[in-house]
Amino acid sequence: MAAGPFLRCTRCGSEHSDREPIWHCLRCGGPLEVSGLLPGPADDRRSGVWQYPSMTGLHDARTIVSLGEQSAPIVPDPVLEGVSYHLQQLSPTGSYKDRGVSVLVSKAKEWGVRSLVEDSSGNAGASVAAYCAAAGIKATIVVPAATSAGKRAQISAFGAEIVLSRDRGTAATVAAELDATYLGHNWSPYFLAGLTTTAPEIVARSGGRAPQWIVLPVGAGTLLLGVHRGMKMLAEAGHLAELPRLLAVQAESCAPIADAWRTGAPDVPAVPVSRPVSVAEGIAVPAPVRGAEVLAAIRESNGACVTVGDAGITAATRRLALQGIFAEPTSGAALAGLQKARTRGTATGSALVVITGTGLKTLGGATPAGCGR
Amino acid sequence: MAAGPFLRCTRCGSEHSDREPIWHCLRCGGPLEVSGLLPGPADDRRSGVWQYPSMTGLHDARTIVSLGEQSAPIVPDPVLEGVSYHLQQLSPTGSYKDRGVSVLVSKAKEWGVRSLVEDSSGNAGASVAAYCAAAGIKATIVVPAATSAGKRAQISAFGAEIVLSRDRGTAATVAAELDATYLGHNWSPYFLAGLTTTAPEIVARSGGRAPQWIVLPVGAGTLLLGVHRGMKMLAEAGHLAELPRLLAVQAESCAPIADAWRTGAPDVPAVPVSRPVSVAEGIAVPAPVRGAEVLAAIRESNGACVTVGDAGITAATRRLALQGIFAEPTSGAALAGLQKARTRGTATGSALVVITGTGLKTLGGATPAGCGR
Repeated sequence: MAAGPFLRCTRCGSEHSDREPIWHCLRCGGPLEVSGLLPGPADDRRSGVWQYPSMTGLHDARTIVSLGEQSAPIVPDPVLEGVSYHLQQLSPTGSYKDRGVSVLVSKAKEWGVRSLVEDSSGNAGASVAAYCAAAGIKATIVVPAATSAGKRAQISAFGAEIVLSRDRGTAATVAAELDATYLGHNWSPYFLAGLTTTAPEIVARSGGRAPQWIVLPVGAGTLLLGVHRGMKMLAEAGHLAELPRLLAVQAESCAPIADAWRTGAPDVPAVPVSRPVSVAEGIAVPAPVRGAEVLAAIRESNGACVTVGDAGITAATRRLALQGIFAEPTSGAALAGLQKARTRGTATGSALVVITGTGLKTLGGATPAGCGR
Repeated sequence: MAAGPFLRCTRCGSEHSDREPIWHCLRCGGPLEVSGLLPGPADDRRSGVWQYPSMTGLHDARTIVSLGEQSAPIVPDPVLEGVSYHLQQLSPTGSYKDRGVSVLVSKAKEWGVRSLVEDSSGNAGASVAAYCAAAGIKATIVVPAATSAGKRAQISAFGAEIVLSRDRGTAATVAAELDATYLGHNWSPYFLAGLTTTAPEIVARSGGRAPQWIVLPVGAGTLLLGVHRGMKMLAEAGHLAELPRLLAVQAESCAPIADAWRTGAPDVPAVPVSRPVSVAEGIAVPAPVRGAEVLAAIRESNGACVTVGDAGITAATRRLALQGIFAEPTSGAALAGLQKARTRGTATGSALVVITGTGLKTLGGATPAGCGR
């Protein structure tokens, strides 16, 4: 890979070198993105995210940390007209997070990071723990005190240390105390860059075109942003005629992006409102750091936003299982959102629902979780 | 696919048509195999097991029941010289069983089966339930009364009915009562045929060669048989110069095949001896129906057999997690077996360890299980 990419603040536009580990804009504190990336050529000797190394911002392929990422299959719904599923739960640790975390940890290795801190209560924490294990990087995962025993068990199995945020404050504080590097996935521009590779994968699996709609459960919204940016890169490079429209689905009980969308606000409130619980814990994010970017992406794609209740989420998750797809409730929320949108005459064209995580982690029964990180 | 294959008894050699659903030899009751199969050509429009349709015995590709099977990645061990892992846990329901069950259920669909009965306490039951859900076939899974709540939950999520074997007798009896078709995976020649596709996948991922050793946890032994038969088909067709040697690993507490191997017996005892428990529940099979075939395959490959204790299994499972591979203890047993064999000077060449199932199903903690089906 040629040395080209740099880091750019999505809020104030200031530019930063990508040669040192930083997690937010050194001028205004805003979230960063990797600029100067190109959507190709694909490297067909590799698969999954690493088939598109030019989209990741990594300078040196020798620091790639891989757990065997694959290109996620797309399967049709047996009944619903024009609906299919992108099975991203079939990834090394069971969620789409691996696609971004593989890049995040590879970049940390390129930077020479030996100890990093991540904050997550669920899939991302397990993913960071696994990739750090493979990279030989010490991982500390800051989790809310209410995090379930099963999720903690997966994080611990990979050898990561768990710190309860109630006791120790924010993850960035913990990192400073430990003399470690804070690289939280929701802030990481490399996590986001990794997710952009979802776009060429979908297009390659769809005969060189994008579906009319892509349906995504939205918590922090990074996956939606990644898909949109990746599709834009493909369109700008002449590989895609038309951008897919994005249907963002949130849980009724925790819907800051849907709320802002409805009122036309350009960003989510900086101070989160306390909200009730949802079975779709993966999208119960009260203060998404890239809220303004997510709202802009939905708008730019000519998309829409919808909220769904827990009863609908549970029914849709069950519907997926009854066709052989064992997904977490967060992914069921996406299907429930599509069904709700269609009853209103929206998203009636071809629609690809992204399955974000496996149901195996909640085999003991999903317990409603409060708004977490 | 041309109409060519037929069913052959592995015990008495009698031949049977493959146009009607049968699960064992109608003459002597022995296990069947699909004969007349060929290892190619590969269909590169499909992936995973369905890349090799000529090895499955299916007559009509329109009855393929797929949940998005992929070719399993191979990743190297970061430390152990020449050791790598075939990550079959990254399959639709989290275990290698999907490779065989996809063929078993597709054949059931080709036969017009509308209701089938399977017996399994774990991964195979979940897999059959999922593929039957996708196929629109009613599935009844006969499980031992001691089966864990988590595993029952996964089977039930796919809409399958669970019957406790203690109350209702054998699975074949249950099938007769329900007017359903018994198609247990351990007996199914199509399950076995599906597993033979492991061989070309490994060879394709290894630069056209096989590793010197393939290390497999062995319960019923069907995966070992499938790998060996697939490799033989490749060798006979001139696609492979040398057969890989098979290292069969069993749990000390339930090792009928290793016991027979040590004494030179041609088959396992017909009446199982009651035995203590093991953490590797996937290989705690006291009376493998294809025992004689498995022993012959190990011998023919110039392989070896080794047993491992629970402490070694747990340590190896933990070692896998500490490099980012979250596997079930049954897969840890394979690594433990390789390590034990190497200390004795066996399997010191290149060795591929097959990871058979995900650790996510036992997130609540693995409980030792008695010898099950």
